[in-house]
Amino acid sequence: MSHPPNEVIALMLRHRSIRRYRPDPVPEEDVRWILQSAQAASTSSFLQAYTIIGVRNAELRAELAALSNNAHVAEAPLFLVFLADLRRLSAAAARHGVAARVETTEAFIVATVDAALAAENAAVAAESLGYGICYIGGLRNAVDAVSERLGLPEQVTPLFGMTVGRPAEDPAPKPRLPLPVVYHEERYDIGRDAGLSAYDEVVRAYYRARTGGRREDTYTGLVARTLAEPRRAHMAAYLRARGFLRDQATVKEPPAGR
Amino acid sequence: MSHPPNEVIALMLRHRSIRRYRPDPVPEEDVRWILQSAQAASTSSFLQAYTIIGVRNAELRAELAALSNNAHVAEAPLFLVFLADLRRLSAAAARHGVAARVETTEAFIVATVDAALAAENAAVAAESLGYGICYIGGLRNAVDAVSERLGLPEQVTPLFGMTVGRPAEDPAPKPRLPLPVVYHEERYDIGRDAGLSAYDEVVRAYYRARTGGRREDTYTGLVARTLAEPRRAHMAAYLRARGFLRDQATVKEPPAGR
Repeated sequence: MSHPPNEVIALMLRHRSIRRYRPDPVPEEDVRWILQSAQAASTSSFLQAYTIIGVRNAELRAELAALSNNAHVAEAPLFLVFLADLRRLSAAAARHGVAARVETTEAFIVATVDAALAAENAAVAAESLGYGICYIGGLRNAVDAVSERLGLPEQVTPLFGMTVGRPAEDPAPKPRLPLPVVYHEERYDIGRDAGLSAYDEVVRAYYRARTGGRREDTYTGLVARTLAEPRRAHMAAYLRARGFLRDQATVKEPPAGR
Repeated sequence: MSHPPNEVIALMLRHRSIRRYRPDPVPEEDVRWILQSAQAASTSSFLQAYTIIGVRNAELRAELAALSNNAHVAEAPLFLVFLADLRRLSAAAARHGVAARVETTEAFIVATVDAALAAENAAVAAESLGYGICYIGGLRNAVDAVSERLGLPEQVTPLFGMTVGRPAEDPAPKPRLPLPVVYHEERYDIGRDAGLSAYDEVVRAYYRARTGGRREDTYTGLVARTLAEPRRAHMAAYLRARGFLRDQATVKEPPAGR
């Protein structure tokens, strides 16, 4: 494609996850711009159903690195934890004598989307200031221990983390799915899956180039390996125990033993 | 606060939802930059578990406007529908003889976060090109009819839409929660709720100014009203019927009639 039409789009197109960091701390003023950008994102019905915990303490970062199996959480000077937060909504409603109905699947979607929109603005802001970032879904690996360590009350759950710091590596952006596979017009079109074969070859070439020929992989192969077993199967019970998704109980279940 | 440090952050801080649009169509080239920016966002484990449907057809936009109770869906020349898409992952894994385990709560979180990160990049890209946008959570009001109308297969669900077009209004950004309420350091701090009272006054002043004194409202009051009854209570059963969140069945239920 042609040259990006402006610096904002050029910045987003340059995005790649950074997993090696220089130790320089992130100045307070930069942290505030990153967080103000996060807050400026859209929020469902103005609810702002998320909280961010900033972790700079090296010992805590090391613990969270171990719990999430991501060493760079210990290396990056700043680690942002994005939480779906329905508790604050309950507290707000309680001021008016109302028991907020936040136990629903809908409320969980609202909080998850709110947190993710804020996070992506934070990511773009951080990159605009010259930082590198990496989302850490591994925070859900030991979600119980992470919640305990961060002192999370009920109706608050970690969704993911984000490492922030000066990059100590300069990897190339990873090639994305062909646009026609991801973008359909007027109607969903299963036929677009045809584009997966060509993409497999793009991904194969990418890994070969990046590893000097040592890694042989494709997109569909990677998906098959990643999803062959249920991932983080503890999330269902964990979320319900913490006050989320309670309306799933209203769904009729097939008989036990199926 | 001081002047934003760069144009990217300044752009995000200027964000406000646009609900009135000029009819000018969005040129194909701009749509592509918006979508490429969306695709450049981070994605969990490289899965890219989302699909976007672009709706330009006026009749379809009018239908979706009615289904989502948002008139501006008919007015904006482009409507983007963001879908959590686990079906394509199933199709990719099936090429390797693997039945992808995408029925989990975890997989739903991955797809929802992936779609939201992509959407926020799309929003920022669109605004950088001079467009206004508005997220449409109302797409979940009649989620069944919307899915039917867009031809969605199983394991694909609408999360939200986004109107895109040239603004025909120029509202002020809406004040967000005080930063200390949303941002905690090292540990979750319930005490930060104290900031809600001051924010209630900020929101009260905002609505008074915007409505010439006619609207009297606060943040906590709005939350209480919004959540006094369960919203979109159909989402739990709908998502399960469509192949999502099936592992919620593994959670022990209290006896019926509770």
